[in-house]
Amino acid sequence: MTGGSGGGPLPDSLPDPLLDPLFTTAEAAAAFAPSRRLQGMLDFEAALARAEVRAGVIPAAAAGPIAAACDASLYDLAALGAEAALAGNTAIPMVKHLTRRVAETDADAARFVHWGATSQDAMDSGLVLQLRDFLRGLDGDLSRLADALADLARRHRDTPVVARTWLQHALPTTFGLKAATWLDAVGRDRARIAAARGRLALQFGGAAGTLAALGDRGMAVAEALADELDLPLPALPWHATRDRVLELATALGLLAGTLGTIGRDLSLLMQVEVAEAFEPAAPGRGGSSTMPHKRNPVAAAVMLQAAVRAPGLVGGLLAGMVQEHERGLGGWHAEWQALPDLCRIVAGSARHAATAVAGLEIDAARMRANLDLTHGAIMAEAVTMALGERLGRMAAHGRVSEATKRAAAAGRPLRTVLAEDSVIAGALDADALDRLFDPLGYVGSAGDFIDRALAAHGKAKETQP
Amino acid sequence: MTGGSGGGPLPDSLPDPLLDPLFTTAEAAAAFAPSRRLQGMLDFEAALARAEVRAGVIPAAAAGPIAAACDASLYDLAALGAEAALAGNTAIPMVKHLTRRVAETDADAARFVHWGATSQDAMDSGLVLQLRDFLRGLDGDLSRLADALADLARRHRDTPVVARTWLQHALPTTFGLKAATWLDAVGRDRARIAAARGRLALQFGGAAGTLAALGDRGMAVAEALADELDLPLPALPWHATRDRVLELATALGLLAGTLGTIGRDLSLLMQVEVAEAFEPAAPGRGGSSTMPHKRNPVAAAVMLQAAVRAPGLVGGLLAGMVQEHERGLGGWHAEWQALPDLCRIVAGSARHAATAVAGLEIDAARMRANLDLTHGAIMAEAVTMALGERLGRMAAHGRVSEATKRAAAAGRPLRTVLAEDSVIAGALDADALDRLFDPLGYVGSAGDFIDRALAAHGKAKETQP
Amino acid sequence: MTGGSGGGPLPDSLPDPLLDPLFTTAEAAAAFAPSRRLQGMLDFEAALARAEVRAGVIPAAAAGPIAAACDASLYDLAALGAEAALAGNTAIPMVKHLTRRVAETDADAARFVHWGATSQDAMDSGLVLQLRDFLRGLDGDLSRLADALADLARRHRDTPVVARTWLQHALPTTFGLKAATWLDAVGRDRARIAAARGRLALQFGGAAGTLAALGDRGMAVAEALADELDLPLPALPWHATRDRVLELATALGLLAGTLGTIGRDLSLLMQVEVAEAFEPAAPGRGGSSTMPHKRNPVAAAVMLQAAVRAPGLVGGLLAGMVQEHERGLGGWHAEWQALPDLCRIVAGSARHAATAVAGLEIDAARMRANLDLTHGAIMAEAVTMALGERLGRMAAHGRVSEATKRAAAAGRPLRTVLAEDSVIAGALDADALDRLFDPLGYVGSAGDFIDRALAAHGKAKETQP
Amino acid sequence: MTGGSGGGPLPDSLPDPLLDPLFTTAEAAAAFAPSRRLQGMLDFEAALARAEVRAGVIPAAAAGPIAAACDASLYDLAALGAEAALAGNTAIPMVKHLTRRVAETDADAARFVHWGATSQDAMDSGLVLQLRDFLRGLDGDLSRLADALADLARRHRDTPVVARTWLQHALPTTFGLKAATWLDAVGRDRARIAAARGRLALQFGGAAGTLAALGDRGMAVAEALADELDLPLPALPWHATRDRVLELATALGLLAGTLGTIGRDLSLLMQVEVAEAFEPAAPGRGGSSTMPHKRNPVAAAVMLQAAVRAPGLVGGLLAGMVQEHERGLGGWHAEWQALPDLCRIVAGSARHAATAVAGLEIDAARMRANLDLTHGAIMAEAVTMALGERLGRMAAHGRVSEATKRAAAAGRPLRTVLAEDSVIAGALDADALDRLFDPLGYVGSAGDFIDRALAAHGKAKETQP
Repeated sequence: MTGGSGGGPLPDSLPDPLLDPLFTTAEAAAAFAPSRRLQGMLDFEAALARAEVRAGVIPAAAAGPIAAACDASLYDLAALGAEAALAGNTAIPMVKHLTRRVAETDADAARFVHWGATSQDAMDSGLVLQLRDFLRGLDGDLSRLADALADLARRHRDTPVVARTWLQHALPTTFGLKAATWLDAVGRDRARIAAARGRLALQFGGAAGTLAALGDRGMAVAEALADELDLPLPALPWHATRDRVLELATALGLLAGTLGTIGRDLSLLMQVEVAEAFEPAAPGRGGSSTMPHKRNPVAAAVMLQAAVRAPGLVGGLLAGMVQEHERGLGGWHAEWQALPDLCRIVAGSARHAATAVAGLEIDAARMRANLDLTHGAIMAEAVTMALGERLGRMAAHGRVSEATKRAAAAGRPLRTVLAEDSVIAGALDADALDRLFDPLGYVGSAGDFIDRALAAHGKAKETQP
Repeated sequence: MTGGSGGGPLPDSLPDPLLDPLFTTAEAAAAFAPSRRLQGMLDFEAALARAEVRAGVIPAAAAGPIAAACDASLYDLAALGAEAALAGNTAIPMVKHLTRRVAETDADAARFVHWGATSQDAMDSGLVLQLRDFLRGLDGDLSRLADALADLARRHRDTPVVARTWLQHALPTTFGLKAATWLDAVGRDRARIAAARGRLALQFGGAAGTLAALGDRGMAVAEALADELDLPLPALPWHATRDRVLELATALGLLAGTLGTIGRDLSLLMQVEVAEAFEPAAPGRGGSSTMPHKRNPVAAAVMLQAAVRAPGLVGGLLAGMVQEHERGLGGWHAEWQALPDLCRIVAGSARHAATAVAGLEIDAARMRANLDLTHGAIMAEAVTMALGERLGRMAAHGRVSEATKRAAAAGRPLRTVLAEDSVIAGALDADALDRLFDPLGYVGSAGDFIDRALAAHGKAKETQP
Repeated sequence: MTGGSGGGPLPDSLPDPLLDPLFTTAEAAAAFAPSRRLQGMLDFEAALARAEVRAGVIPAAAAGPIAAACDASLYDLAALGAEAALAGNTAIPMVKHLTRRVAETDADAARFVHWGATSQDAMDSGLVLQLRDFLRGLDGDLSRLADALADLARRHRDTPVVARTWLQHALPTTFGLKAATWLDAVGRDRARIAAARGRLALQFGGAAGTLAALGDRGMAVAEALADELDLPLPALPWHATRDRVLELATALGLLAGTLGTIGRDLSLLMQVEVAEAFEPAAPGRGGSSTMPHKRNPVAAAVMLQAAVRAPGLVGGLLAGMVQEHERGLGGWHAEWQALPDLCRIVAGSARHAATAVAGLEIDAARMRANLDLTHGAIMAEAVTMALGERLGRMAAHGRVSEATKRAAAAGRPLRTVLAEDSVIAGALDADALDRLFDPLGYVGSAGDFIDRALAAHGKAKETQP
Repeated sequence: MTGGSGGGPLPDSLPDPLLDPLFTTAEAAAAFAPSRRLQGMLDFEAALARAEVRAGVIPAAAAGPIAAACDASLYDLAALGAEAALAGNTAIPMVKHLTRRVAETDADAARFVHWGATSQDAMDSGLVLQLRDFLRGLDGDLSRLADALADLARRHRDTPVVARTWLQHALPTTFGLKAATWLDAVGRDRARIAAARGRLALQFGGAAGTLAALGDRGMAVAEALADELDLPLPALPWHATRDRVLELATALGLLAGTLGTIGRDLSLLMQVEVAEAFEPAAPGRGGSSTMPHKRNPVAAAVMLQAAVRAPGLVGGLLAGMVQEHERGLGGWHAEWQALPDLCRIVAGSARHAATAVAGLEIDAARMRANLDLTHGAIMAEAVTMALGERLGRMAAHGRVSEATKRAAAAGRPLRTVLAEDSVIAGALDADALDRLFDPLGYVGSAGDFIDRALAAHGKAKETQP
């Protein structure tokens, strides 16, 4: 697994042993392992039995034997899968096998397995349990990432660096502000994910979404079941209105974009010609099979990969929202693998981001040197603004623009060319020009922005569990 | 424009006069008309001048002449567009033309046009203003839709209808519960849109996102500007971290899915063979050029169309999130038309949904008749559950399943076949069977669910502005 | 595995044992099993050694020991995966382990492992080998599907059925024409896939795409290598221009749409209220956990599921096309799992389609009965056209439209209402009306269309290998 | 319009006057102007009348008056649009207005307007005509682009440049090979578009796809109609099987990716730190509102923008393929604006690509200088390979890798460090090292590859019309 994951994966947790270690985390792989999918459904069945005992719907003696059989390790995944291929979903064979196993020890209890529920109740509630597990792991990485970004923002509050717009040099900024901008975005991502998590509710409606099989005890069982599973009780079942789970998908899609932005910037900063920041080095990491001098941006590659794949996965999930009547055909099925796929790759991206940012190597000297690559043209706005106060913005713009072109054409420093222009020299003396050519003298509110982002981060930390 | 929209569109508000009346609303078209895009940027420039006067950055006399020129009708869109094709964005020529026009009346004021700002500040803040306009119109339709759904839920609390899963008859439910389920989803959509709206903040960072050109007055101007535009002031600029606007895109994508689900169901209910509900009729509406007897589900078509297109638009927007450094290349540009396109079609879908639901024709008799199409098999679960209390669920399931097959094979009512089965007849007498074959007797918690959804709707209405 | 697949899957071929049996085929799972990915790369390495011997680049004795070690079963996938997580791709550790193993038996040969190649050469060429394997299996199913559709088209050449537009009854057509329309589309899909297959070429460029390490022997090795692997030799390497593999992805995306269309129609035809055609029944197939009378459209669900997921996967793959310089960062990585995922689900959809169509149960009587559901209004166009020859199309349209409305309002047969209209009765006598109300009398060129599609299918069969 | 487009746009051809000049071409805008959509349908109607005269279906005198009225400028788009909003498509009001206008001059002819056709026949055939117009313009740009790339490939056959993989320096290549690689991809794009164009066929099936209204004259009319419109006659109508038009969408999606790849590389090469190639400069082009020294990569921005948007549009179109029965609901509607949108932005991307590549400024000296940035490490593979012939690849790899690290750490040229290593110096003398450090000495088959791509381009030119 990537970068120091602690938890051991379940035996079946790596569907793609060659690539999953690169693209996901052990925790995410475990959360969506086939056995965990089964366990999620079984957790629902065990809780249902307990809830129905509490609501007086089934005999108290039934819950124990049912709960005892709700252990995924007791079942043959391949056999369940083969039956699911005919039945059309995994819950139908799960209920059959569970009932059979309970019947082996307690025929009476077996009568009450899955009582009043439908396949989708078990599958969706189980999925919600898996998603909550997954989110715990994800938030750990996002928390590490946010803290690492906050640390960068603090440490590099006064590290000047080129601000690049449209991939061209614009003006100076600080590396701290770059980090703070990422931090601020990650903070919003976490807030959105938390909001989506809050809407991941119990699914419980029975075959038609009415809990008909429970007569007048439906709400009582539903309340007890929500309590057993520690899940919110929704106003009503959501079998064919999928926004609850898909909201999370969109929040993850946005997060993938945020992380991809960080990854893109890291990859650009790591270019030989730029060389301002580097992913942490490690033995065996990022080497090339044929080029000994290369250090590949592996974390950036993974973050970008996830940002490329996530939008299509989100789009596919949204396309599946149009579900028919009380249970959809095809649209619902489309979620079963796609949503875990999305979760897995976003988790991998977050892990790589946290690791890369925490160990980021910064070359502040190179950042400073790159600021001079345009022979001072990057400070042209500073001069333009100072001059604009006297000549007007457009006039100053024109004059400095001309000087910049002359300087560029001659390969001479703009500072020198400006000093030779009598109008400019008349408005700005040598000291003024010196101050105008200090990058840190022209970063405006960068420090304020960093402080505001750090304050928001600090506040969010207080309110998080 | 569709269904009785009141507001007159601006002259340039219908980019596609043949199709936009079908696919969008006059309000959405107006909110994203080219002239409105320009006006959004000009509103930013006028407010910026006022804010900079308040902050003591520019002379008090400059604000008036600048504001006076900030009127989109003064400019030639085609000329601006032609220059934007070279400049790469629309704000560059806008600032040029605005400055020129201000200069015609007040050369001094012209010096302070766009002072300290960058193209993207004007474009993004203008976009946010457009989006807020748009959302006002959209919420009107969503509010009408929610009220109409609530009304349906109330009126059809006891209208039995077939619940269909996988497009097959499952069990009875009530049409009220169908409506309440949609209502509940629309409520979540509105909550998500409101949350996204809350994060649509002022964009103001200057060329590098530092407000460098404003020296130590950056935050003062930013605060005054946010106040002038009545927009939230973000912790820092978000030029290249696009989640603020794209969160809205994902919320609209989810809404499109909710509306598409309603549209799909309406289209299925309108099938000649089902004929349970119909879009409202109107002269010229839904006729066919060659088939006089047809009544086409036009609203459903539009709602489904939007649900087909929205996921790809959302995916494309998310794919553009990976933006470079302080201002992205390509990803940002990808938003300029795609986000308005998404807004436009979602607005059209919401309008059609509101109109179709408000005027929905329900054929309750046909709903009741369709419940009998399977000769009673739809009540098999009711019997199974009742029988299950005596024989156990699996045994009852097997016995009723056998009877259902015999009934289907012979084309006889299940009620009759069951009564002939001595084991079943022993467990359930004629009265019990009669009760078990009344659809409304087997809708469980449907009423509770409706009440809960209506209560949530009522509560949401109270808290909305 | 689904529906009678013969081949035994490799031990590691089911990444998702619970769901893959439903969603894919054993053959596709095998083609993209992790071990097969490794074997694809190893096949490249073995062929490379042989080609380099042929071109005189490496010693003849090196090829044997290298080829002997090119057996995936000799390697530990988990170990390779763990190293790939650091290296950033799977070929780097593959080459290391392969070299080590060759060295164990022949240190000299080990010097020539991977000679002159780069990671991506092995990975892309291996992928192309996997894709060709996969396409063999897929085409088997498409061939079966096409033959089954051709058979349906022939057998139901004269089976009248309602043509439905916008989900409303339009006119009569024949079920044979429905099948022929699907057949025609599948034929185009196969042609596109064959064209894409033809562009799946050898990847061989070395570290920079120049084959620099082979000096002046590059083309000679490339030609021999293409020959060894039986792959087309491209004009030049395509490391960062990904259209060769992505063209196949788009062809599969189109196929998924074709199959989804068939699946949607099957699901609609299987509705209780329509009941015209049914997926073949099988023990354990499509049952419901709680509703004994249900027969779920499992094949349709899978076909629709693939049609929902495929567009997003295709979109994600296209989004990854923008790859940097001589080897992309992120975009290329995004293909590694997404392209196999797409292949897998399209294969499953094709298998289900072939099986469902081959065993489709047709209820021709019900088709005929449904034609009468509108009391003859479905024949209104026939009457309109016949009448139009006398009164003009618009006038006839108006008159028949009025009659249709009166008939519908009164619940009376249109045939009767028309006969009562003196103008119509004057133009069309009773015999003429009888003929106009025979559905098979108004299917125009349906037979010609079927013949043309069958002829095209026959011609395609001749030219296929 | 962008870059020297000649044709004047129709008055209504710029739905978005502010942004379309940047994002599309005048020709594409004209091809998909609302009036052109109407004209496409009218061209179908005129041709239909002529074809039906030829087939003896309608009176010879009817064709003239009908054709005379088939002129889009005679109709009020807004009125048609308003009626389409109720009718659900544009052809229904078009037929009404056309019939009315024909009737004004010839009531007899008016009876035969649209005879035997359905809305979708006119809409799809009209669309196909628009697409063919559009493709003519697009191919002009692609032809210009291909020629410009071929020219670059020829001229820079021996211009060494850094090959970059994963955005890191890898080895030398030539700029000619970069251009040839793009050329090769554009050639495949053109081939795919031509194949898709070949499948853009006549749509003609009447209300149910059977041509029922034409009795036994259906095929005769269809053949004459295909001839009139110069369109291929398909085996059968394709109302609900949309692969014919969507294949073109996927081909455009692939093209957008190819162009995006070029745009990404241009933007990277234009970075201040790299500065190897530049989009052509022009007055007003790419300037910044606040930074006089900036030259923005406007063409690259547009090419990237299209590559970001196209995948989602393609995905959305594919998602709409699942269309019901004989005419789809929603999926078909989803094409109406999305397919033109896709065409428009791909055209703009191709135009910008052709212009930027044709005027590309190359700084060969900077390319050469950048090759030295790693102090010779970029030639490490050349040394490794030469050394590998003596020591074996792995040993040579290790030794050179060590030397490279020492050189990098000390900031000394690798050439010098290698010469100090006695083992290396023993194997490679000074002359050998000199040769190994000449970039052009290590570009392997680059010249062969260029020749092969140019040959393929030449051959394609011969066979193109």
